[in-house]
Amino acid sequence: MPNVTISTDARPRLVTTAIELRDAVAAARADGKTIGLAPTMGALHGGHLSLVRASLAQCDYTIVTIFVNPTQFGPHEDLGEYPRTLETDLDALSQCGVDLVFAPTNDGIYPKGFSTYVDPPRVAEALEGQCRRGHFRGVTTVVLKLFNLAQADVAFFGQKDYQQSLVIRWMVQDLDFPIEVRVCPTVREPDGLAMSSRNRYLSQPEREQALTLWRSLKLAVELFAQGESDAERITARMRELFEQTNINRVDYVALADPETLQPVHQIQASTVALVAAYVGDTRLIDNCRIGNDE
Amino acid sequence: MPNVTISTDARPRLVTTAIELRDAVAAARADGKTIGLAPTMGALHGGHLSLVRASLAQCDYTIVTIFVNPTQFGPHEDLGEYPRTLETDLDALSQCGVDLVFAPTNDGIYPKGFSTYVDPPRVAEALEGQCRRGHFRGVTTVVLKLFNLAQADVAFFGQKDYQQSLVIRWMVQDLDFPIEVRVCPTVREPDGLAMSSRNRYLSQPEREQALTLWRSLKLAVELFAQGESDAERITARMRELFEQTNINRVDYVALADPETLQPVHQIQASTVALVAAYVGDTRLIDNCRIGNDE
Repeated sequence: MPNVTISTDARPRLVTTAIELRDAVAAARADGKTIGLAPTMGALHGGHLSLVRASLAQCDYTIVTIFVNPTQFGPHEDLGEYPRTLETDLDALSQCGVDLVFAPTNDGIYPKGFSTYVDPPRVAEALEGQCRRGHFRGVTTVVLKLFNLAQADVAFFGQKDYQQSLVIRWMVQDLDFPIEVRVCPTVREPDGLAMSSRNRYLSQPEREQALTLWRSLKLAVELFAQGESDAERITARMRELFEQTNINRVDYVALADPETLQPVHQIQASTVALVAAYVGDTRLIDNCRIGNDE
Repeated sequence: MPNVTISTDARPRLVTTAIELRDAVAAARADGKTIGLAPTMGALHGGHLSLVRASLAQCDYTIVTIFVNPTQFGPHEDLGEYPRTLETDLDALSQCGVDLVFAPTNDGIYPKGFSTYVDPPRVAEALEGQCRRGHFRGVTTVVLKLFNLAQADVAFFGQKDYQQSLVIRWMVQDLDFPIEVRVCPTVREPDGLAMSSRNRYLSQPEREQALTLWRSLKLAVELFAQGESDAERITARMRELFEQTNINRVDYVALADPETLQPVHQIQASTVALVAAYVGDTRLIDNCRIGNDE
């Protein structure tokens, strides 16, 4: 017999309109299925796939949304360059067994006359909110729309976007959204670099430099473990690492309260360390918990 | 036998917390019932009761919310004075056969740390939006929360608050809310005064003056029926009526597009006439369609 390999990986069903999504969701609901949602901007990597797998493990019906949301990009940001890799994304998802992919058009999400936005909660003001004006307003608006369209029971977000996950959790609580938000751990490359769709912008030398973000976070953990609790001294040491690797555009190096993101001066119990910096022209972010957990 | 009258009007079930409301809604859903919602600020009158009756006629399970929403009042408005008449309201609702009344506390709706708001759609900018800064932001925020809490299929609003009904309809469309908005006709006193919880602020002479709002709207309808289509001439005649009855604080007398509320200069097909004025210290609004419909 000829050596024929038949792939059992069927591509997930792809829909592009709200009405198709709603019909599919209604059918799943009618079958008594719980619905999980993993909202993404595509260019899927291991981090996204971990959200998808969490949904597959915890829900009966998993929806992945792929939408590069224009309202969360600033006027001088990388909306135009952002990688759009739908075919590859569908291949990756076919290996997981996702039930539905929703990939709407810009006009589908923001039709003519669209003008209602969600003003994000206070936790959006610091850090990314300072560096990327309007970013979280775009995030809360599109996420609220996707919640309403998918009517999922559970939505999965990554800890990599730590502040975003807080913003979403606060929004859900403040607006009484009938959905549960679960935050999955950051997925890292073997050397520690946090997976990000923007990593593909990096040249080989930049890829080396980019590791500084993770190294600076590990340094903070080590210093705290050695008994240092003064936030200013720790962030100074972290900033030295960026200088040593010639990363000159550092947006922030912060030690903050893990719920409010208010700056912490003396590390006591749980704290989160967050960094944002440009490696070449590519803006990267990363974070990790200090004190307990990680 | 003694002449005993036993009332068959059972008071509707009253709940004050989100969790009680959610449980009741889940039970109704499990029974396959469609859910109707009539959001009110209490001080119920015939206008509110018409929304309730519409819901009772069109849905299996009717929820009335009673909440004087502080975020839709300006700093110098009548939040403190606004009538709160829960007992009378419950009596009125018991005669209709409502399934559930949700009357949350301020802290239940706006707990400590609350900070996510809904920025209303463009149609909120004109008219009331100019006169009552921030009003519609409070409206959209609380209505979105009530939608999420009640998870109704249909929500009923009154045409009396014409711009509000447009703001809600745009919000629902822009944010893909899985709810249908139905707008019920304004209910009027026998002499034409639009029913309003604020009418009870009026002294007897003010009650006479207040009729000017409705008379000015009727005048616009008559002038158009007589062949006048110039908006400026019509609104000038309407304003004369206010002057003649010594109503000096007129917030607006407007002829507008019924969907966008943009000013109309030449009345062609459908137009809406809207007025807002202070009668004594009481601010009243009213509106009616011109051209077709009413």
